[in-house]
Formats: sequence, structure tokens, C-alpha cells
Amino acid sequence: MTIILYDIPSTLKGNAWSPNTWKTRYALNFKGIPYKTEWVEYPDIEALCIKLGIPKSPFEDHYTFPAIHDPSTGAYLSDSWEIAVYLEKTYPDTPKLFPHNTVALQHATFTAYDDNLAALWFTVLPDTNNILNPASEAYFRRTREKAFGKKMEELEAKGEEGVKEWKRYESGLKKIADAYATSSGPFFMGDTPCYADLFVAAYLIWQRLVWGENSKKWKDVASWQGGRWAKLLKDLSKYETIH
Amino acid sequence: MTIILYDIPSTLKGNAWSPNTWKTRYALNFKGIPYKTEWVEYPDIEALCIKLGIPKSPFEDHYTFPAIHDPSTGAYLSDSWEIAVYLEKTYPDTPKLFPHNTVALQHATFTAYDDNLAALWFTVLPDTNNILNPASEAYFRRTREKAFGKKMEELEAKGEEGVKEWKRYESGLKKIADAYATSSGPFFMGDTPCYADLFVAAYLIWQRLVWGENSKKWKDVASWQGGRWAKLLKDLSKYETIH
Repeated sequence: MTIILYDIPSTLKGNAWSPNTWKTRYALNFKGIPYKTEWVEYPDIEALCIKLGIPKSPFEDHYTFPAIHDPSTGAYLSDSWEIAVYLEKTYPDTPKLFPHNTVALQHATFTAYDDNLAALWFTVLPDTNNILNPASEAYFRRTREKAFGKKMEELEAKGEEGVKEWKRYESGLKKIADAYATSSGPFFMGDTPCYADLFVAAYLIWQRLVWGENSKKWKDVASWQGGRWAKLLKDLSKYETIH
Repeated sequence: MTIILYDIPSTLKGNAWSPNTWKTRYALNFKGIPYKTEWVEYPDIEALCIKLGIPKSPFEDHYTFPAIHDPSTGAYLSDSWEIAVYLEKTYPDTPKLFPHNTVALQHATFTAYDDNLAALWFTVLPDTNNILNPASEAYFRRTREKAFGKKMEELEAKGEEGVKEWKRYESGLKKIADAYATSSGPFFMGDTPCYADLFVAAYLIWQRLVWGENSKKWKDVASWQGGRWAKLLKDLSKYETIH
């Protein structure tokens, strides 16, 4: 049976952009589990979740995606982490996201990634806002402007401060690159991807999609650390199909 | 043959205190590789390293410990990470520090730990200074006061600011506890320790040693996150023998 993946559409070709829903899409594609995306604009998420009985993520105070419905078990669930753990447990005969008891090491890897990437948010959120459809754009703008106490157009640091923040982002990625560099292969665990690789790739593909492949920003990121990040996306490109 | 582990002595019973040399001691004990500690005061480290041909750590601009000499291969090397990788490669029939290709995931775990623990340094450095022998104390004080531009006695935040920093340290440890909580056992990889556990424990045993088991600070740390940190040290206590 086919899993339903709930995701937020955009003006981009293929719709998909959100890093959090990309984590789930990558995981489903990597595991080869049949699924189909259902596109829901931001303002409609809450009502849908309440109607279907999809809970809030334990890490959020509001309803958001990714969420899935798995007709073969009847499960409705949200949150990329909870979904990854669910898929791993429910489909034991598919490729492993957390092989050899690495679930806690991979969880710590996300912490390392998140802590280092604070510098990314304010430069990528306004560009994300720009690719949303009108209904989602208004919602995204309202909630983010409230959260940060700034107009969307004022989030990104300008001039010298902007250069400094961009360097800070590069330094954050360098720490993740240093970890990758100790691996015997292109992925964290050598020659086979694990969930931590898909997690990192989900943030990268978001940047490539909202900035565009030919943007100065993406070209910068793609050039850092010996081209590691462009190569990671390329190595995982077979898992980026949008079903 | 017996490896020599170079370490810095103190006024503590058993001498050992340094988190970085504890990483190596834990690793040697965990692997069951025979070794003996040679105690060298801070001001004598550089001359000894130059005499023996021990290189600087790739992460430091000065000579420091841990360093080891392995008479069975003739190797002299420094830096806890380099030593862990060397031991894993040179002694393949001993318990694994990085089982199943987890070296890069574990490296990322250290980043997660380091980033979260900035709040620890200024409260633990003055107490560390207090347990050193006079020659090392003078060296430690001079180099740290130069690095931070403050007297040793002014490093730790006081009053409200101190309370805030201490809470910040607790929050940092919480992120590591959250990762641990996803494991199926007491260690990152379930029921068997790996190097990332020894890495975390090395920082904890440092705190327990320089603050003392009955100090308010250690009792705080030991009580956080359901007593996880005291338990981790207890679960690894068979690897804390000082040879």
C-alpha cells in the first residue's frame, strides 16, 4: 500500500522545497517504500491534522509537516525524526537508516549540524518566502515576522554584517566537513548512506532549490570544502525523485 | 610491549585530571592495551616533545598532551584523536572504538559536545588551576590568562550571570542527553561503549575530580537529566584505572 506524504507546495517546478519534508522524502525514496505526496498550503495544515488525527511534533507548538499516513498500519504521524524511527521499525526489510545501533550517534550529529547552522536561517528564510504560493506566503511571513520581531525583508544581514554571517555559515559547514573527512567513503558511514546523510542533504537541497543552481549563494556553498556539498547532493540524487 | 602515556600530574590522588589525556587513558583501558603513565609538569612538555620527536597536535599551536610512545612500532604521537585512530588501526584485535564504520558519526558527536559546552570552561578552569602542582600552576595560569585576557580568579561569572552560565551548561548537556535517550542501551551504540562515550566521560571525570565528588557543582551535574552523567561514569568505571 502507498504511504501518503503531506508536504507544502511552492511555485517551484516539482513543488517540494521544505528541508523537513525533504528528510522524509529522502528516507522514503532511500528505503524504496511506495508513497505519494499530497500538497497542502500552510493555512490548511492545522485543520487537516485535526481532521485526520495527526499530532503535533513533540518539538513544535503548532501543527506542521512532514506528516504521513500509512494505510497498511493505519498510522498517522508527524515530525521527520518520529517518521524516520517509525519507517525503520515498520519496514525492517528495507535499507537501514540507522544501521548497527547508530541511532543515538546520528541524533547527536543533527545537534552538531543545527548548532553550526544558525547563521544560515536569516539568509535563506526570505528566499524561501519568495517561492511560496500566495496563501502560504502570507502565513509564512506572518508567523516568521512574529517569531523574529522583524519584517521578512529585514531578516538578512546586509553589508559587512552580511559578509560576516555568510563566513560564519561557511565555518559551521566546515565542522561537518571535518567529520565527513574522517569517513572511509562519501557518506558518514563509508560507502552507504544513512539517515544523517539524508538529513544534511535535506538542508542542502532546500538551499539549491530556493536560491537556484546558478545563484551566487548556491555557487558559494557548492564550492566550499572542496565541493563536498554539491557532491553529496549528486551522490544522493537517485533519492530526490518527487512522487 | 608497554605503551608510554605522557600526562600532566596534579595534587590529586592518582595525579590524573586532564580531559584530553583521560580520552587516551580510557581508550587504552577499554582496549586492554598495556601502558604506563609518565608524569610531566607543564613547563617540561615542550622540551620533552622536541627531544623525543613528538609532533604538535594538528589542532594546537603548541606542544601538549596526551602523547604516547609505542615501543612495538616505534611511534611517537600526540593528540587524543590521532592516538585513538592509531590504536584502532594498530591493534585491530582489541575492542573497537569505532565499530561499523562510525568514525565520522563519532567525530560529528564531538562537535555537538564541544559546541554545547562552551559554558563549562570558565567555571572549571579556575578549579583546575587549583589542583595543579606549583610549576604547572604558574604555566597554566600564565597561558590561560594571556588567552582570555583575564585573571584566573575573574574567569568564572558571578551572581546572576554565573547562574545563567550554569543553566546554559545544563541546557548544553541536555542536547547530548537527548541523543543518548534514543539509544537502546546506556551507551551511544547500545550496550557496548564506543569512543564517543569515552570522550564524553573524559570531560565528566575531569569535573568530578577537580570539583570533588561532594561539591555542589558535581552534585548538580550528577543530578541533571535523570542522573545520566553519574551513571555514565559508573558504567565506565572499570576503564578508569590509572596505570
